[in-house]
Amino acid sequence: MKNEIRVLGIDDSPFTFNDKFSDIIGVVMRGGSYIECVLKNTVEIDGDNSTDKCVDMINHTRHKLQLKAVLIDGVSFGGFNVIDTEKIYDSTCIPIITVTRDKPDFEKIKMALEKHFKDWEERYKLIMEGDLHEVKTVHNPIYVKCVGMTIKEAKEIIKISTIRGVIPEPIRVAHMIASGISRGESYGKA
Amino acid sequence: MKNEIRVLGIDDSPFTFNDKFSDIIGVVMRGGSYIECVLKNTVEIDGDNSTDKCVDMINHTRHKLQLKAVLIDGVSFGGFNVIDTEKIYDSTCIPIITVTRDKPDFEKIKMALEKHFKDWEERYKLIMEGDLHEVKTVHNPIYVKCVGMTIKEAKEIIKISTIRGVIPEPIRVAHMIASGISRGESYGKA
Repeated sequence: MKNEIRVLGIDDSPFTFNDKFSDIIGVVMRGGSYIECVLKNTVEIDGDNSTDKCVDMINHTRHKLQLKAVLIDGVSFGGFNVIDTEKIYDSTCIPIITVTRDKPDFEKIKMALEKHFKDWEERYKLIMEGDLHEVKTVHNPIYVKCVGMTIKEAKEIIKISTIRGVIPEPIRVAHMIASGISRGESYGKA
Repeated sequence: MKNEIRVLGIDDSPFTFNDKFSDIIGVVMRGGSYIECVLKNTVEIDGDNSTDKCVDMINHTRHKLQLKAVLIDGVSFGGFNVIDTEKIYDSTCIPIITVTRDKPDFEKIKMALEKHFKDWEERYKLIMEGDLHEVKTVHNPIYVKCVGMTIKEAKEIIKISTIRGVIPEPIRVAHMIASGISRGESYGKA
């Protein structure tokens, strides 16, 4: 795989209990170091439109045809607005890779969903979908799911787009922008 | 000068005639390629608080002590909210470099100011302050002013922080974020 591949990373902005919406920020990077584009959309906190907003972001950027994959931070945006990665792949034809730094505690997630959502089973089913892979890095392992490509290909894309630390640059930069515009100064994730 | 210097680039977001405020985005980069922080503040369109907002951004970032220089896109933010670079330098002790891609048309600027502002002379005086240097690049020249360092040092910082094209990365990335969050998708400047 070429080092100059283009990858879109997406993360959401932090929010408080008073907020109804959270921004999601997309960053198109070439080879994990050169930023080509910044995208913004908005999701409803604890709503169910993350999937559609991601599809919209991917399908409408002028960089779509060059995208090799979309890297997503976690499995939901705006709290428990859970992302249906299969549906994003079906609607965009771009492979989707989700990355989390910590191993998800599914029992804890289930309890939180049961407590707050009538449709908790649907949300939980989405979260549980697909195989979770522990991927070794130079530091701690990260936890990865992928749709539309093999885990071998996903690992290669993660390797190419990670410069320092364990988080791929498109996600790290999207996180910085999302937290910076929301709080005035970004906080780290490296 | 080391290649790993930290520089803050600042640019403002595009706005329409209905807007009263414009976001300014700051990006701290190491060596022109690694983003360390994203900052946001807001200025009044055609107001007079750009200087104070820049001082605030510089003095309050946790990266201040590492900053070698601040690169600013142009001489005003939010329309004609003119930046007093001498005052920023006096209030922060960080050298300031302003960069414009096109040679400023001072006669046109003067006419626009005269037409719209009672205090046009003050704003115009600020814009005219300092020596404007034409700096050669591999492509077209850029136009540079600097406070708190020599033009030789400013040129070196611009060279270190420019990766592709003629615009230093901290300004290019700040511009992308500012336009991306304002319009949903950034437009180019390279």
